[in-house]
Formats: sequence, C-alpha cells, structure tokens
Amino acid sequence: MTTVGVVLSGCGVYDGAEIHESVLSLLALERAGASVVCMAPNVDQMHVINHLTGEETGESRNVLVESARIARGAVRDLAEVRESELDALMFPGGFGAAKNLCDFAVSGEKASVHPEVARLTREMLVSRKPIAAICIAPALLAAVCRDAGITSSLTIGTDEATAKTVEALGARHLSCPVEEFRVDEENRLISSPAYMLAGNIAEAATGIERTVSELMRMAG
Amino acid sequence: MTTVGVVLSGCGVYDGAEIHESVLSLLALERAGASVVCMAPNVDQMHVINHLTGEETGESRNVLVESARIARGAVRDLAEVRESELDALMFPGGFGAAKNLCDFAVSGEKASVHPEVARLTREMLVSRKPIAAICIAPALLAAVCRDAGITSSLTIGTDEATAKTVEALGARHLSCPVEEFRVDEENRLISSPAYMLAGNIAEAATGIERTVSELMRMAG
Repeated sequence: MTTVGVVLSGCGVYDGAEIHESVLSLLALERAGASVVCMAPNVDQMHVINHLTGEETGESRNVLVESARIARGAVRDLAEVRESELDALMFPGGFGAAKNLCDFAVSGEKASVHPEVARLTREMLVSRKPIAAICIAPALLAAVCRDAGITSSLTIGTDEATAKTVEALGARHLSCPVEEFRVDEENRLISSPAYMLAGNIAEAATGIERTVSELMRMAG
Repeated sequence: MTTVGVVLSGCGVYDGAEIHESVLSLLALERAGASVVCMAPNVDQMHVINHLTGEETGESRNVLVESARIARGAVRDLAEVRESELDALMFPGGFGAAKNLCDFAVSGEKASVHPEVARLTREMLVSRKPIAAICIAPALLAAVCRDAGITSSLTIGTDEATAKTVEALGARHLSCPVEEFRVDEENRLISSPAYMLAGNIAEAATGIERTVSELMRMAG
C-alpha cells in the first residue's frame, strides 16, 4: 500500500489549510487506495482571521490543534514523522501554507520555512519520493529547494506578482489551467493551481484528482 | 437553476459541522448543477472542543463565523434566508447539528431547535420542498417534525441508543447502509448515515453523492 503524508496548516483558507483542497485531497487519495498520514507542525498560527469579515481577531490558535478539525482528530505532530514512513508527500493550499508552514505571505522572496517542514520536505527530495503541492503551497517547495540549491519548476496560478515572487525564490513558474497539473520531472514535484484560479469547488476537485492520480503513479 | 440551501453549524466534527460531509455536499451539489446558498445561525457554539484531545477548551466561538471557514466566506445569517429563495435544503452532520442547530446532544428526546432553523425547516416542509439530512442531522428534522405534529421517517446509523432516542422524538428509524440513503416520501425527507457509519471518507462521499442526486431529482 502507498502511504502518503498530507501536511495541513490549520483549518480555513485565510489563516490555515484551505478546507476544500484538504478534503478533496483526502478523498482523492482514499479513492486511489492510498494510506494517508495527516500531519501538521505544532506551532501557533501567524494570524487568526474571522472568515466572515476578513479581519484579524487577535485570538491565538495552534496549527496542529486546528488541523485536527480537518483530520477528524487523526493528525500527527510533523516533527515526529520520518521520511521512511512515507512513499509520497502532499501539501494542500490555503494561506496557512504561506503563513504557518513558511512565512512567504509576509516575507515573499526572503521566506523562511518552518524547520521541521523543511527537514521532512528535504528528506523526501533527497530520497526522490514525489511531492505534490496545491494552490499557494508550491511557494513553500520553492523556498525549500532554494535553500537546498535546487531550481524547482512550479505552478502558482496566473497572478503576475505572485509568479514573479516565486521566481525571485529561484523557481521557474509553470503556467497551468485550473483542471490540470504540471510536473517537475527532475525534482519529482507535481503542482496544480486549484483555488489560485478555481471559480468553484468542482474545478478545484478536478485539478486535485488529476494531481493525486499522478502522485500515486509516480510513487509507484 | 435549482437553488439549494446548505445549513452549516460551525467547523469541526466535535463542536460544529462535520467538515468532510460539508465539503462533499458542496462538491456533489456543484457537480449536479445546483446553485448553493450556505447559511448558519448567528449564535455562539455550545462547546469549543480541541479536536486533538477531545477536551473542551473554554473558548467561545460563533457558529456563523466558524461556518465561514467551510464556505470560504460565502455564508449568510440563516435568519435572513427566506424559504422562497430555495428549491431544497440540506443539513450536513457533525455534533454542531445536535449542539448548535438544536440541543439533541444534551437534551435527547426533549431537544429544542434554534428558532430560526426551526422556522426555515418548517417553511420548507409546508411548501413541500425536499430536505436532506446527513449523519446525526436527521435528529434535528425529527425534532422539527415532532413540534409540527408530523411523524417523520429517518436514518441515524445503527447505534441502538441513538436510534431509540430518535424514535422517542416521534420519528420512525430507517436502517440504512453507509453508501445508501432512505426517503420519507410523505414528508419529502432524504437521509443518509455518512460518518454515523463510514469507515473512511470515500464511503461517506458515495452516500452523500447519492443523497444529493436524489435531492436534486426531487427538487425538479
């Protein structure tokens, strides 16, 4: 059985993991026959955003604890997960990927990555196990690859400014429609824009289903 | 176009709307061509539960604000939604349906329903527009029907104690496997057990897809 790690970053598009992308990833992985290990870093969120108003609430919430909402309790502290347990890794999007897993949302091309997230991602790269990233999460992969001296090729939607910042991180930007994915064969990275472009949940689902299918194929 | 209201009850299985069931409902509705109106009551949650430990946190969170996480901001105060805007109504499950939309989780057969949730549900019943309820949410429909002097027929999974409490609410309990649904033709109610029985997200998805397909057929 293929074991796939899913890295969550909270619970909600504006301050955590994008909920639709996370659930659609879990569904596609289950239907593809994967065994899924949900994980998240045990760290406070950068922000807590009221998703009705878009405003910061001033509350404090923990990324691992909030991720447990999406995982129905079955989520592990990422620091305890070893590369040897996994055949592939997947990052759903949401601002949490750019605020909690790394700080791309505020630091842009100078983004630094949560040390344990960087450690596991680097281990997967070194062992040439495939990694998929959805929506804004490819920015995180770009930062890990930059720190490892690797030039990655990744999708980030069609927003010019965001694409430029990702290229400033040292990555090549790949243009990609919402229902497709792109592969960096050299580094075994798969990426798809989902809600960077999706007009509705069905569009996001199609892109994620195809991404998962390719991830499972590459994981063998 | 068929417009379907989706009633959310927070964001997380133990104190709000079950996230997988909610997202799977939104996906199935979008793929079936529905126009979706997400809504939730503007009221504090009964509990806030740490989904990693299962313990109460003592925090206060608002049902409408937390539901906005699942709806990516596009959620309306249920009190402002009129029956005339909708062709059908759907309730995903999660403890929120039994804690925030009604108090079945603590009051059992004496459950009372949030007044605006009761108002909208009753209006749909009177206008004979179809209503679907997933997981534990049929308990809410049983309570609304009881208050209206109607005997409903509903699924609630296979837990004997829960089934008995629903029957004490005046409903007939319908046994139903996880990947199927049951219809109360007289009252135009559809129900399916999802995570009352599901061993994984794919089983829940199949039951919800079939429930949505039937809801759309009945909504014409």
